[in-house]
Amino acid sequence: MTVGLKQKILAAVQDDLQRIERELAGNLNPHFDLVSRVAGHILFAGGKRLRPLLMVLCARLCGYSGDRDARFATIFEYLHAATLLHDDLVDGSEMRRGKTVANQVWDNPTAVLTGDFLLARGLSIAADTGLCEVIETIAGITENMSQGEIRQLEKKGDITLTEEEYLEVIRCKTAVLFQGACRTGALVAGAEPIRVTALNDYGHHLGLAFQMADDLLDYTQDLATMGKHAGADLREGKLTLPLIHALSRSSDADRERMLAVLKNPDFGADEFEGLVDCLEKYGGIAYTREQAAAHIQAAKAVLRPFDNHPTRKLLMDIADYALVRKA
Amino acid sequence: MTVGLKQKILAAVQDDLQRIERELAGNLNPHFDLVSRVAGHILFAGGKRLRPLLMVLCARLCGYSGDRDARFATIFEYLHAATLLHDDLVDGSEMRRGKTVANQVWDNPTAVLTGDFLLARGLSIAADTGLCEVIETIAGITENMSQGEIRQLEKKGDITLTEEEYLEVIRCKTAVLFQGACRTGALVAGAEPIRVTALNDYGHHLGLAFQMADDLLDYTQDLATMGKHAGADLREGKLTLPLIHALSRSSDADRERMLAVLKNPDFGADEFEGLVDCLEKYGGIAYTREQAAAHIQAAKAVLRPFDNHPTRKLLMDIADYALVRKA
Repeated sequence: MTVGLKQKILAAVQDDLQRIERELAGNLNPHFDLVSRVAGHILFAGGKRLRPLLMVLCARLCGYSGDRDARFATIFEYLHAATLLHDDLVDGSEMRRGKTVANQVWDNPTAVLTGDFLLARGLSIAADTGLCEVIETIAGITENMSQGEIRQLEKKGDITLTEEEYLEVIRCKTAVLFQGACRTGALVAGAEPIRVTALNDYGHHLGLAFQMADDLLDYTQDLATMGKHAGADLREGKLTLPLIHALSRSSDADRERMLAVLKNPDFGADEFEGLVDCLEKYGGIAYTREQAAAHIQAAKAVLRPFDNHPTRKLLMDIADYALVRKA
Repeated sequence: MTVGLKQKILAAVQDDLQRIERELAGNLNPHFDLVSRVAGHILFAGGKRLRPLLMVLCARLCGYSGDRDARFATIFEYLHAATLLHDDLVDGSEMRRGKTVANQVWDNPTAVLTGDFLLARGLSIAADTGLCEVIETIAGITENMSQGEIRQLEKKGDITLTEEEYLEVIRCKTAVLFQGACRTGALVAGAEPIRVTALNDYGHHLGLAFQMADDLLDYTQDLATMGKHAGADLREGKLTLPLIHALSRSSDADRERMLAVLKNPDFGADEFEGLVDCLEKYGGIAYTREQAAAHIQAAKAVLRPFDNHPTRKLLMDIADYALVRKA
């Protein structure tokens, strides 16, 4: 059923994805060779293009009929790629989308400056919309995202992280970009404020659910599917909802067992499996799935007042898919 | 005479500098402790506040009478500080304004994310102006600056760097921020296009001259005055105008002598002095001074059509000071 849903969505958005790919490459030219190569390393490594796609679809749902949607949509992929370039350096990751991270293929300076360039490119395209509200949205996204990343960095290894603090981190680092993409789609279509707010909320809930699903995958997927090692968050000292929830209700002995793994970045497969067992035992996996599902329900609920348009159905399918995706 | 000019300027802008300081601190609150500390490390380390001051003065010259100028002016100090945080990492510098660089006091991730945050903060304040032209200006600045930094990184150690390529690097990395600050001052004052362009040009020429003077100081100043070691650019493999000019007209023997120093980042004081002798011998120092002086003349020339206002005189004094400053 998951494969069926994915195929159905991909078939429906095939043309949009092609237009987005063309703009992603086109907007980078003509630029220096080095920038194109480093940006291309992260941009053309099999990303799903979910964020630009959301902008294009939300614009369409609000009646957009121009031909600049794919161009404007690249803003959200550039911002996303910029964040990934800086994050990989911050996290000390080695793999991203099955490839060696840019700051190891090249070096930290090149990764930092290319990230800066992609962010700047996104802002310039935002300025091209000529819509102050869009620009305010993008400025707000960049501010929130950097705050979220800093907060996450500060909280690394902090075993007292609460569910509320976790939610604030994922809102800043993930949901604001989703909601900004959806909001911008509505804005470029000249939608009335109530629709702008609705699509903003759709993106917010979808983004939270998407990040929760991502955090779950870190405990349930292997290298082949994710393009990075399972347990990567844990190895970096990042507490996510499955663990936060399990820690909040575990026995003292199991708590110590989980914290011992968290505190040892060189944990082995056995120790990792033992921790995942604890997450299952205390409902950390199930609770995170439930919370993600609740946000997907909320995302779909705000779409109901929109006309029964094929694009509305597609946005609902995307929401469902965010929950069941395997990569 | 230099000291006299500096004192005269400082006396005239004392109130403006105080307003700018208040806004620089105020706009960072309420933010996380870590951000405030890292941002404060670079922001409150004795910077001259030249960029925000230029915005305030250009706004005044164009008749601005509101009370938001100092707030908007912080954009240019935040952008500047963001660039410095990333640059120090890129350059592997150890000292900045007489202090250990942020990425060594903290670490690379913290410096990168705080830089991102300051850039984002600047954009949010730009969005607050509600003026699309200002936002376009800021977006253009960030794009140009990151391009300039990348180009400089690519060209490190490239002994074939031409004067034209050098000019393009310093335009992107320095002059666009100066011209953006001056342009924004005119825009927030609602100045007519001809004045916006004139002040844009003033900032452009001032920025080029300022960077040339800075590049000269790298060969003529010591640690005590600059807060960093003389020869720092050279040690990083950065060719600047004094050396580019000297290389273009030196004997083969002297060329080899200069290149030997450039290729050895561990050069000693004697070798550095030998290289400076070559720069003098082939007119590299004098030529750079002449070029900087020509840009200062050009900067002052575009101010002439403005009314004979004390602020016009002040902007002319600032231009003169850029050329003779010792730090």
